[in-house]
Amino acid sequence: MEQPRSQQQRKQDTLGRLESDVDVWIATADTAGNGYLLPLSFLWDGTGVIVSTPLSSTTGRNLSRGGRVRVGVGDLRDVTMIDGTAEQVGDEKTKDAFVAKHGWDPRKEDGDYAYFRIVPDRVQAWREVNELPGWTLMRDGGWLA
Amino acid sequence: MEQPRSQQQRKQDTLGRLESDVDVWIATADTAGNGYLLPLSFLWDGTGVIVSTPLSSTTGRNLSRGGRVRVGVGDLRDVTMIDGTAEQVGDEKTKDAFVAKHGWDPRKEDGDYAYFRIVPDRVQAWREVNELPGWTLMRDGGWLA
Repeated sequence: MEQPRSQQQRKQDTLGRLESDVDVWIATADTAGNGYLLPLSFLWDGTGVIVSTPLSSTTGRNLSRGGRVRVGVGDLRDVTMIDGTAEQVGDEKTKDAFVAKHGWDPRKEDGDYAYFRIVPDRVQAWREVNELPGWTLMRDGGWLA
Repeated sequence: MEQPRSQQQRKQDTLGRLESDVDVWIATADTAGNGYLLPLSFLWDGTGVIVSTPLSSTTGRNLSRGGRVRVGVGDLRDVTMIDGTAEQVGDEKTKDAFVAKHGWDPRKEDGDYAYFRIVPDRVQAWREVNELPGWTLMRDGGWLA
């Protein structure tokens, strides 16, 4: 097991992944208390995780409700967890930036695709069990490191 | 993009991963409709995904309630999704098998660790978008391939 990273290093690694990774895990819930999970392509726009999915899909319905959403970034042994709530994205500039990253424009798809921004209020990052101390990088929307 | 795999191949790949992988993503929900996600070490015992986590943790509380649970196996671009509900595991043989796999015995930890078995009733597996057709491998608890 490697030495645990500093919080500063973890924040840097996390922001690096948010810039360069293609997909994230999106964990949502319905009002009956059923969990759901889906990998989705994303864009980090500096303030939140942007994803696009049909409004009528399970994830789309769950994101629309305003419940807590958890985003898993990275791998099972090099993980960043982002907690927040989703808001629908209206501006075309953000949608264009998503298209520029992925070469895929949900606006041109059949189906009721919408864009959502998940704005983090808590961020945690760890690799192995020795990084559980100090895993919280953001609390109440403010970076700790 | 590679040619899409047959359902038989996907089932074989899925069972291979369940035998050899170490960790899975566990997506759960609370009764207020908040999603949660955590990577946990697991054991596949032939009927379900066995995990261990403190009863008082968010995941432990959510698993205890009997809501739908979604297990993500594999990587973002080579994924198996297992839907089911969790039941608590009582028998020591299963707990011993978990310890044999991981070299870690939650019974010896501080905290109120419990074991849960998530029994799948639906299984889906896909790599890229061309594998979305035919992604369902199990429905209502029965393998389709």
